[in-house]
Amino acid sequence: MLIALFPGDGIGPEIVAQAKRVLDALAIPGLTYEEGLVGGAAYKAVGHPLPPETLDLARRADAILFGAVGDPDCDSLERHLRPEQAILGLRKELGLFSNLRPAKVFPELADASALKQEVASAIDLLIVRETNGDVYFGEKGMRKTPEGLREGYDIMSYNEEEVRKIAHQGFQAARARRGKLCSVDKANVLETSQLWRDVVIEVSADYPDVALSHMYVDNAAMQLVRNPGQFDVIVTGNMFGDILSDQASMCVGSIGMLASATLNDSNQGLYEPIHGSAPDIAGQGKANPLATVLSAGMMLRYSLNLADQADRIEAAVARALADGARSFDLGGTMSTVEMGDAVLAAL
Amino acid sequence: MLIALFPGDGIGPEIVAQAKRVLDALAIPGLTYEEGLVGGAAYKAVGHPLPPETLDLARRADAILFGAVGDPDCDSLERHLRPEQAILGLRKELGLFSNLRPAKVFPELADASALKQEVASAIDLLIVRETNGDVYFGEKGMRKTPEGLREGYDIMSYNEEEVRKIAHQGFQAARARRGKLCSVDKANVLETSQLWRDVVIEVSADYPDVALSHMYVDNAAMQLVRNPGQFDVIVTGNMFGDILSDQASMCVGSIGMLASATLNDSNQGLYEPIHGSAPDIAGQGKANPLATVLSAGMMLRYSLNLADQADRIEAAVARALADGARSFDLGGTMSTVEMGDAVLAAL
Ligand SMILES: CC(C)[C@H](C(=O)O)[C@@H](O)C(=O)O
Ligand SMILES: CC(C)[C@H](C(=O)O)[C@@H](O)C(=O)O
Repeated sequence: MLIALFPGDGIGPEIVAQAKRVLDALAIPGLTYEEGLVGGAAYKAVGHPLPPETLDLARRADAILFGAVGDPDCDSLERHLRPEQAILGLRKELGLFSNLRPAKVFPELADASALKQEVASAIDLLIVRETNGDVYFGEKGMRKTPEGLREGYDIMSYNEEEVRKIAHQGFQAARARRGKLCSVDKANVLETSQLWRDVVIEVSADYPDVALSHMYVDNAAMQLVRNPGQFDVIVTGNMFGDILSDQASMCVGSIGMLASATLNDSNQGLYEPIHGSAPDIAGQGKANPLATVLSAGMMLRYSLNLADQADRIEAAVARALADGARSFDLGGTMSTVEMGDAVLAAL
Repeated sequence: MLIALFPGDGIGPEIVAQAKRVLDALAIPGLTYEEGLVGGAAYKAVGHPLPPETLDLARRADAILFGAVGDPDCDSLERHLRPEQAILGLRKELGLFSNLRPAKVFPELADASALKQEVASAIDLLIVRETNGDVYFGEKGMRKTPEGLREGYDIMSYNEEEVRKIAHQGFQAARARRGKLCSVDKANVLETSQLWRDVVIEVSADYPDVALSHMYVDNAAMQLVRNPGQFDVIVTGNMFGDILSDQASMCVGSIGMLASATLNDSNQGLYEPIHGSAPDIAGQGKANPLATVLSAGMMLRYSLNLADQADRIEAAVARALADGARSFDLGGTMSTVEMGDAVLAAL
């Protein structure tokens, strides 16, 4: 089984290195690794954020462990050359359409959230975000209005097949959890959302055991602040999912702890921490590697079918936290490597 | 000066009635009132959520005091007949493009937020949301893909003139406050946002005294949870503004207290509480009328140029709260009318 390691920019290399140490410690037979260039690092080395060799490696791999992309040096590049294009390109080229973002408070860190402790500690939700369609990938461009004004445009759309696929992901995830699915849209304004809602309702016929509800996105943004504990699984489109999943992770508080997976039809997946490349602390050994370690755990679970080993990683992270391991973002002073040491010790 | 009263659905008539009492108590010479049907109430009476007589009254009025629209009985109507179309139609037909939503914690209610008290009490921000363009009003519809699949689509766009107008609103508001403007977009993905950002930067040349920053919408949703006190004025498009302004109001906690204004080029405005029609408590005298009372205050300030009278309303509301007036949503037992009484007593 081939794992592609894409460390990327900023703190990416530091945190991926610790996740790799943890994977190595599990001594899983038959795992091989190849490293690839992505993001600003790839642009600087070879002139493109997602070079052909990287894309080729991604296609060959069973799973991708991804650090982070984003580099202030690249801010003034044309959009198609910016680091973020690596992640968008990988999602599109590999058909990685189902982005899973669990948000749950670690009991030891319940006070880290800006939300009141009783509100934050009730959070245990999963956002299932579609990542192959919507206004992200529709036709877009600059044009002139009839009066000669500059105008930017982007076409938002979903077809029934795209919605059906992600709806099944949402229902299946809900079935494996607490049996509640909330579909988020803006059907009072958008035709794209109206189709979304119609198709989610059609798919729900296959899941009589899952309780389906619908919520407008503005209300969902309110409810995620007021009472995030009400949610089990949220399924939503690419644009709304981008916003709500970041909001939900911040509700948890310790964003350095949150992992994510993005899967395609053959369970090939890209695994990454939800935080960014943090250029301000890059290279200083201050980054918290736990979100990346937990992403490696998700990788073992979803793409490599090694649930036992995934459980071991998760237990080791929980144990390290319980034993007091705290990086700077968690109010402690432990370095990136020391946090890796703590997980290894707990394994 | 003509004020159009549009009570609408659910608790709308109850809360508008209290705001009207407060306006009457100010005995402002030359104010006249006419009432119009909107929303589900209008649909049920005459078959359309925004009947021609209502639109005509709105055009003639100097300002509109709006209750709320939304009626579960109308959920299965076609979209163009649903109550929400009243508000969308008024915004579009009257050119009401600049939606102002102040969010600030009342000291007496600082504990009402799900956010920690020290986080919530630092909130003092204004969201300036564009409400005449974006994916709300672009071409939209259902079509078939080449493979015969149902597809919903909505075109998102902004032209430079639309962005320029709302950018000026944002900069002017920032100048009148703490001098900080944060423009929120998704320029790493959307061409519409790229134009937005370019034009906001162009307009900033006229406001060297305002500190301009840019933030992606996903990050803004995080920052509104993590540290909402960092914001002074946020300017953003229709879609992102819908989500972020609802999120921000929930951060404040007491959503029954928050007012809004939507202005056009001639300072004609629509004033409404940011909460909805609350059909579950309609007709029970339990609704909090203070957001509508404060909306009437904004109306006096922005459309009628009566800042002194607006100050009086705001002071009376603050006084009533300080004296212990609490409706059900604020943890008390006072009825809608009793809350109105409390404001009148404080005037
Ligand atoms: C980097 C950016 C293009 C990306 C997105 O908007 O999808 C990121 O915010 C994410 O959520 O993975
Ligand atoms: C009712 C709805 C169409 C409206 C909107 O999305 O603009 C509402 O949510 C608002 O924010 O005023």
